[in-house]
Amino acid sequence: MRPDFDLSLYLVAGRPALPGKDLVASVRAAVEGGVTLVQIRDPKAETQQLIEDTRALKGMLKPYRVPLIVNDRIDVAIAAGADGVHLGQDDARAIEARRELGDDFLIGLSVGNPEEFAHSREDLAFVDYLGVGPIKATGTKSDAGAAIGVEGFAKVRALTALPIVAIGGLSSGDAAPLVRAGAQGLAVVSAICGAADPKAAAYGLLKEINSAR
Amino acid sequence: MRPDFDLSLYLVAGRPALPGKDLVASVRAAVEGGVTLVQIRDPKAETQQLIEDTRALKGMLKPYRVPLIVNDRIDVAIAAGADGVHLGQDDARAIEARRELGDDFLIGLSVGNPEEFAHSREDLAFVDYLGVGPIKATGTKSDAGAAIGVEGFAKVRALTALPIVAIGGLSSGDAAPLVRAGAQGLAVVSAICGAADPKAAAYGLLKEINSAR
Repeated sequence: MRPDFDLSLYLVAGRPALPGKDLVASVRAAVEGGVTLVQIRDPKAETQQLIEDTRALKGMLKPYRVPLIVNDRIDVAIAAGADGVHLGQDDARAIEARRELGDDFLIGLSVGNPEEFAHSREDLAFVDYLGVGPIKATGTKSDAGAAIGVEGFAKVRALTALPIVAIGGLSSGDAAPLVRAGAQGLAVVSAICGAADPKAAAYGLLKEINSAR
Repeated sequence: MRPDFDLSLYLVAGRPALPGKDLVASVRAAVEGGVTLVQIRDPKAETQQLIEDTRALKGMLKPYRVPLIVNDRIDVAIAAGADGVHLGQDDARAIEARRELGDDFLIGLSVGNPEEFAHSREDLAFVDYLGVGPIKATGTKSDAGAAIGVEGFAKVRALTALPIVAIGGLSSGDAAPLVRAGAQGLAVVSAICGAADPKAAAYGLLKEINSAR
């Protein structure tokens, strides 16, 4: 059975987002502040390093009952015992991921705009949630598409009943309009990974998200 | 059941090794010249691109009964229906690969020297062959270790009964000493991918290998 998941405050983290910081300790602090779901993303990591980091995060997250998703790497998710994968438009197709993972893993899919949504239509039956964005311009992900704003988010939101997490350049102050536009939650990287106090940053963001509901 | 495989002339290919050339056409020519096994290696490719290239190569290779191995990516090997994976020292451990792949896929493992062999001892029960090298210095693989020469090759050869393919900077003239030192075959990248006529290059190399036996 697939794990329960809560998109409210979705942290995307990995060594590149946490230079000079400890990956597990940083994510633990964020989870103690209220992060509800974690994705590990480190596209340039060697496979063995990524497996080890994923395993370490999964071990830490287990008692918190916070699921761990691996960006792109189906093989790493299986090897490390993670809870799912998050696929970009250039990654494996969702049908392939579902075939390899079976029914017990979560699958998320990035959709940049209504055109990408249309292109992904046949994937939708195999995914558990969508990541929609970038909402704002972001320096974190070099290959992200054009910022779509809350207006662009609302256009994708109108096309599907799947749970959606908004992503891309989001930080304090962004939650209310996105939650009102139908986002189940917000995904962040630097708003938490770049914060001096990731626990406090997560706490503040989750409070904003819950207040907007 | 695992596919039969013949390490005699093992081609490692991918878009990076074939700039401006067609991947499938180049590999087809090499196979028509005598290549007995193909590995696709493209560590910087997007996953979907790598799946598509692997699938295209597999479709081409099938009638030739030449197996296709994917470098590092267990998930891609499964998604694209390839015949196995080749693991480096920084990739997933062989026990993890075997767990994910089951018994029908080939698993190869790179071993750079007797010390790496010792480090890999627990992996040996799960692999079908070893790739040992670099024999000579090579510009193809930026993270390759120090060249070990035929002498270093012989030291690893003495430690195991597993089939071994020698790799690293090999080209015309290198086959005889390595085959005499117990190599089941030679793996090459640029000696075939960089040749004006990959079919003729493969033909010449296979002839040298067979003559040395």
